[in-house]
Amino acid sequence: MAVQDVESSILLGGVEAGGTKFNCVIGTGPGDIRSRAHFPTTTPAETLAQVQAFFEAGIKRHGELQALGIATFGPADLNKASETYGYITSTPKAGWSYTNMAGLLGDALAVPVGFETDVNGAALGEGLYGAAKGLMHYVYVTIGTGIGAGVVVNGNLLNGATHPEVGHMLMPQEPAVNGFEGNCPFHKNCLEGVAAGPAIKARWGVSGDQLEESHPAWLLQAHYLAVMCVNLTLCYAPERIVLGGGVMGQAHLFPMIREKFAVLMNGYQKLPHLQDLDSYIVPTPLQGMAGELGALELARKAYKGEQ
Amino acid sequence: MAVQDVESSILLGGVEAGGTKFNCVIGTGPGDIRSRAHFPTTTPAETLAQVQAFFEAGIKRHGELQALGIATFGPADLNKASETYGYITSTPKAGWSYTNMAGLLGDALAVPVGFETDVNGAALGEGLYGAAKGLMHYVYVTIGTGIGAGVVVNGNLLNGATHPEVGHMLMPQEPAVNGFEGNCPFHKNCLEGVAAGPAIKARWGVSGDQLEESHPAWLLQAHYLAVMCVNLTLCYAPERIVLGGGVMGQAHLFPMIREKFAVLMNGYQKLPHLQDLDSYIVPTPLQGMAGELGALELARKAYKGEQ
Repeated sequence: MAVQDVESSILLGGVEAGGTKFNCVIGTGPGDIRSRAHFPTTTPAETLAQVQAFFEAGIKRHGELQALGIATFGPADLNKASETYGYITSTPKAGWSYTNMAGLLGDALAVPVGFETDVNGAALGEGLYGAAKGLMHYVYVTIGTGIGAGVVVNGNLLNGATHPEVGHMLMPQEPAVNGFEGNCPFHKNCLEGVAAGPAIKARWGVSGDQLEESHPAWLLQAHYLAVMCVNLTLCYAPERIVLGGGVMGQAHLFPMIREKFAVLMNGYQKLPHLQDLDSYIVPTPLQGMAGELGALELARKAYKGEQ
Repeated sequence: MAVQDVESSILLGGVEAGGTKFNCVIGTGPGDIRSRAHFPTTTPAETLAQVQAFFEAGIKRHGELQALGIATFGPADLNKASETYGYITSTPKAGWSYTNMAGLLGDALAVPVGFETDVNGAALGEGLYGAAKGLMHYVYVTIGTGIGAGVVVNGNLLNGATHPEVGHMLMPQEPAVNGFEGNCPFHKNCLEGVAAGPAIKARWGVSGDQLEESHPAWLLQAHYLAVMCVNLTLCYAPERIVLGGGVMGQAHLFPMIREKFAVLMNGYQKLPHLQDLDSYIVPTPLQGMAGELGALELARKAYKGEQ
């Protein structure tokens, strides 16, 4: 990525904290990543000690960090007025409930910390360097182990009393296919319960990457994701919807989603960007790097006092 | 309403432009409405001339207006970079498509104009004087002839490339009741197509106010509105959802909606305000005045240069 960084002298740390691994980077921007490592997500004590050691070693080699950005799996407490701000809260990930991510790492490294969800971080990355570059209003959705969205309106991440949870939206049901009626432990057949990676595997008996492009699984998947795109369009009025995550590695889904989206919208809303769906519903070009680039941007915002 | 207006010397005009009538007010705030009138929505030429004459007469009696606020039926162009900013756009209301509401009235009265949708205006009114007073994040939904929502996040109205259109969200379907499968001309069985006032009438043969509280129509209606509240909760993370409009005159719907909401959410999200649904899903106390109070606030924002 040949991106000119406007503040290239500011050394920052970024952590993309996932349920499987933590990706850590030191750098000033996408064109200047000076160090990178990843650590498996085991226990908070073990993983955070590895993260801390990585940054301490990096500081010795590259100089002081000015701030740290953390884009984490959730649910996360983003409310600065809350006593548990900066924590991962009641996560099903064993051992991680109520881990004070921002506090522990910020104190250990003695830097200001920017803290967001992983999808919000990735959405920032898409806006700066990816498929949403230059847009004021867009949605980034990851469809993988779960489904989550980061929403940007007027250039700002949308967080209300907490972060959006569009993965659990209730939506039209197709008749149960292969006897599968959804696997969300809370809502059974919400979006995530029928369209995330584990739902595909539960319905068809094999994971999505084992299914041929002609398999009926993809027609159904495209339908669910087209419904999702309709509801995101109506709720947020974005200029573009960027779809990432493991499931969207199936590139043949995109034209199918666009086709079904047009049928479902049925001409409602005449906005120019809704007439060019190839540019409206798009893949991410960042190949899994949106999260760590977003984490660096969170660090930059923390450094500037914007977060 | 005993509301102390902090800037009571600023005389403002407000227009709540509906598909049936235009409500016009002159005043400085809810405790100081100096003049009020309403005019039927006939043709733009006739109705806007009456509105103009009302304000001109008001100026003679009360003094110069500092700004005008318009909260209008839609769809409306809220994009200031657009050539049709301030217009009602492609409305099914005969004769009103591409009417330059903000331009015509602003020029006629030579004042700055604040321009929003009717539900966005009403949402502002709820936040200042109604059920969402003091909240940073809330949603106001009107369920009447149509369904629309004004969304406030971090104290600001949420508008993306256009205003939200949550009335058309796609949602789980109940089996067709009385052979009725929805009456949205675009989407058939979207939220508005199954739960707005005309849908109730189409399904049961009589309008909602003719149906007893024990009628099964209300269980179905509560289900649809509970699904809507779940999706609004997941998309926007509001601190409160305020429900208004003609259909919500049926006060017995509120406890039914809350009960079904709790079942559908099924314990997902532990936020304190979701544990007290009597305070989370609430009626408007403004008795139809939210729109004109919101229009005055739009005028105040225009006066201050905030819009």
